[in-house]
Amino acid sequence: MVSEQKTVDVSFDSLLRIFTVPEGPDSTLTQIEEKLSQNLNQFLREHIVAEEKPLRHIEQDFSDSIIPEQPEFVSDHTQHLLDTLVSQSVHTSAPSFIGHMTSALPYFLMPLSKIMIALNQNLVKIETSKAFTPLERQVLGMLHRLIYSENDEFYSRWMHSANHSLGAFCSGGTIANITALWVARNNALKPDGDFNGVEKEGLFKAMKHYGYEGLAILVSERGHYSLKKAADVLGIGQEGLVPVKTDTNNRICPVALQEKIQELKAQKIKPFAVIGVAGTTETGNIDPLEAMAKVCELEACHFHVDAAWGGATLMSNNYRHLLAGIELADSVTIDAHKQLYIPMGAGMVLFKNPDAMASIEHHAQYILRKGSKDLGSHTLEGSRSGMAMLVYASMHIISRPGYELLIDQSIEKAKFFASLIEKQSDFELVSQPELCLLTYRYIPKSVRAALAKATPEKAQLLNELLNELTKFIQKRQRETGKSFVSRTRLNPEKWHKLNTLVFRVVLANPLTTNDILTKVLDEQRDIAKQAPNLMASIKHLSDEILAS
Amino acid sequence: MVSEQKTVDVSFDSLLRIFTVPEGPDSTLTQIEEKLSQNLNQFLREHIVAEEKPLRHIEQDFSDSIIPEQPEFVSDHTQHLLDTLVSQSVHTSAPSFIGHMTSALPYFLMPLSKIMIALNQNLVKIETSKAFTPLERQVLGMLHRLIYSENDEFYSRWMHSANHSLGAFCSGGTIANITALWVARNNALKPDGDFNGVEKEGLFKAMKHYGYEGLAILVSERGHYSLKKAADVLGIGQEGLVPVKTDTNNRICPVALQEKIQELKAQKIKPFAVIGVAGTTETGNIDPLEAMAKVCELEACHFHVDAAWGGATLMSNNYRHLLAGIELADSVTIDAHKQLYIPMGAGMVLFKNPDAMASIEHHAQYILRKGSKDLGSHTLEGSRSGMAMLVYASMHIISRPGYELLIDQSIEKAKFFASLIEKQSDFELVSQPELCLLTYRYIPKSVRAALAKATPEKAQLLNELLNELTKFIQKRQRETGKSFVSRTRLNPEKWHKLNTLVFRVVLANPLTTNDILTKVLDEQRDIAKQAPNLMASIKHLSDEILAS
Repeated sequence: MVSEQKTVDVSFDSLLRIFTVPEGPDSTLTQIEEKLSQNLNQFLREHIVAEEKPLRHIEQDFSDSIIPEQPEFVSDHTQHLLDTLVSQSVHTSAPSFIGHMTSALPYFLMPLSKIMIALNQNLVKIETSKAFTPLERQVLGMLHRLIYSENDEFYSRWMHSANHSLGAFCSGGTIANITALWVARNNALKPDGDFNGVEKEGLFKAMKHYGYEGLAILVSERGHYSLKKAADVLGIGQEGLVPVKTDTNNRICPVALQEKIQELKAQKIKPFAVIGVAGTTETGNIDPLEAMAKVCELEACHFHVDAAWGGATLMSNNYRHLLAGIELADSVTIDAHKQLYIPMGAGMVLFKNPDAMASIEHHAQYILRKGSKDLGSHTLEGSRSGMAMLVYASMHIISRPGYELLIDQSIEKAKFFASLIEKQSDFELVSQPELCLLTYRYIPKSVRAALAKATPEKAQLLNELLNELTKFIQKRQRETGKSFVSRTRLNPEKWHKLNTLVFRVVLANPLTTNDILTKVLDEQRDIAKQAPNLMASIKHLSDEILAS
Repeated sequence: MVSEQKTVDVSFDSLLRIFTVPEGPDSTLTQIEEKLSQNLNQFLREHIVAEEKPLRHIEQDFSDSIIPEQPEFVSDHTQHLLDTLVSQSVHTSAPSFIGHMTSALPYFLMPLSKIMIALNQNLVKIETSKAFTPLERQVLGMLHRLIYSENDEFYSRWMHSANHSLGAFCSGGTIANITALWVARNNALKPDGDFNGVEKEGLFKAMKHYGYEGLAILVSERGHYSLKKAADVLGIGQEGLVPVKTDTNNRICPVALQEKIQELKAQKIKPFAVIGVAGTTETGNIDPLEAMAKVCELEACHFHVDAAWGGATLMSNNYRHLLAGIELADSVTIDAHKQLYIPMGAGMVLFKNPDAMASIEHHAQYILRKGSKDLGSHTLEGSRSGMAMLVYASMHIISRPGYELLIDQSIEKAKFFASLIEKQSDFELVSQPELCLLTYRYIPKSVRAALAKATPEKAQLLNELLNELTKFIQKRQRETGKSFVSRTRLNPEKWHKLNTLVFRVVLANPLTTNDILTKVLDEQRDIAKQAPNLMASIKHLSDEILAS
């Protein structure tokens, strides 16, 4: 707010100043920035509130739809941002924030980000990015090599080739997955005789030309929700995203995959892509990629691996075997903003074959001219920032062995937490961690015994009550603000596939200690006591089942 | 590079330090950041080279595809980035960089960006963004109101409504346009009787259900190249993007539009969307939006306006009339990273009807649950950063009248430059500026006379030579590095639609002075002299034509 004494000038000269004169060393903004540079963690601890303010109250601060007619001083507005926005944002870098894949960031990325933003390059073309273009191509090359381990000759031939692309840097995994499926679709429905390809003539004519009745993308039941979006956008339809059953460890069954493919083919439905998941979002499991690759080769399907989250595991020589077979994929999605510890907005898709992206190549008169090395000719997005610089810097400053340590400690921490949960009489581990993600729930010992003994009807009833309890604990814990776990719904084999709400934990933050994890369980146990009626109902029903 | 004396520790403790301990006050990175904070322009002037280094030389610095096995000190790596990357990046904020839409940024955005990055919110869901969610909804509300001018009641009803969305914040205009066309496509092929809608059943079944032989999106010949990508991705096919002829001012002819629609309908092709362009990327012209809206209403087409660049003009009460009719659009794309002076990565699409996006709404178990206000249920992208904060801050600090001044000065500067070009005997204005974009070329007076008099064959020959000259001047100017204009290819009516290479100038940077513009012409005139053989050929052919 601007007081009457203190109105801001809106002359052109004052506007020029905001483009030429930085904030003074005493300004609120400069001071905040300095505090943030000196001790980010403390700044965040001080400025992000612990207690939950109901969203509808926060919304009141963001309710004016009129663009202000009166300018504000930078310092005044910064204070306003601190009071209303920063104070009510989520402390994603807190060591006790273990509910999602967003984690702490290395310090050096803050000033480097500022440099990146100040340079304001646009990666769509060389004319507005220059050295950033070869840098981004190198980053894609590094990730490509991490996955496919081609030799020096391969990379010196393709990495900077004008008419090829080893992949695309994107805003995130969803765009990366869409890009992979777009390429797969266009290659499956490519030009043939009189037909100019789906990219030119569209899906309807393509289907008629090839004589297909439908298109299908196959993925395990645990595939990411964004794949439905992808199927919708690409004109396949959500029903064309065919779920394949998983084993008790949430991994796709290769036999079921092949059967499903043949079943689709018999119906004249073209299964043009199969997606392996390496790490599922909800349980963190990895599909049997080698077996899937074999099926894909046999059935001539594009094999895409969604390793948005788990791909970083390739950095660890101790654990990269978990993703064995990924090198057989035609394309792979990796999000650097997940376990490569880069700020939000750094997705990538890599293609095994440097020619693969030709099917989506595009040109324009004023940019992306043929033969240019403009990155924009192979990306779904147009204008893009120089985020690749942050990946490049992290690769050099942290290095592969550094990432290895980060990955290893996160997996080992998850193993610790799993064994800790298993030692508790009143918690149940629902999914074992394969990487650093696990799920569990609060369920007292006697209730567990009752659930095992119950008739299907009673089991369902009891399970519903437990779901209510899980939801209550998760919400109350989030609202209390000391720690955060997320929740999701699974269908554990053990409980006869009953709809089961579980806590979901991702242990990516290197600052999360074993002690913090112990306290998370203590807190949840305490919160359970804050629902005496619900607890009484659970106990009552359990006793009844056990007595019968 | 790390010297032998100075190897970096890769222990877990050293890694924890990079997450907890900021760079010391004397570190290279801190010093660079301070210099950048004190005087961004000087920092950029000192660190971005003027002389062009050939791309193949720069590529040598970015040729290693192996992820380093040895970590580097932050300061060492920062120096490396300065030497190899920053020094060879493009000075997009230089007042003489007038070739593209990427421009200078207000100073206050640098520290604010750092805060945004440090907070590392993920806007896909409230659990990882909290107050950023209502903030982004408010920003979308502000832009919606700027376009559609609905009343307070409308915004208090819809802006924060869980199951509605006034638009989507995206990484850029391409995703914004794709989102608009996705919504339009799904609404055109919506559930109907037994048919569950294109989102579920896909395009092939949708076409059969509705009995269409094809789908079409209509746009002027001057539509952005990304629309072809959109048509491809969405399964329409690039041939389904139907170009409509423009008048001499590069504006779509509404009569031709309506004729084309009827022609398509007669062929059972469904024209489900019409795109108005406000300003075209190559010439900066604005389609007659009101007339287009009428045609769309009559023909029941979704009317989308691509105002990625020109939309900011709505901030000026003096010029917003140029976009009259935009309030009739069903959806509008605006890029805040163009003339709203926000860093790269801030696109938006707004929908007139708060229900429009229901056709692409999606949910998932662990996030985006029904009834939640998670922004991710209405966006094409998944995880997204808190960029909306920068738009919000700029709206408050610059305010609408501030933006008005910025817009007005850019348009007036373009008018000045146009008149300056017209006063030169050896330059020709090819397209008049409607906003702050114009095109022109170097063509000595006698050559112009010759071109006007020449037979079609000779005219084509002479024009080819002129194109070579334009290309030579533009490249040499870029390489010299004092100033930068871009180039594109137009077909001016005046020259019987000959393929004509032109200089393209966007005058968005408030620091660009009239003096700089005068010098740009002087420089181009001088560069022309550096091609004596080409100039001699042009003169020779011109003399021959004039003598005949």
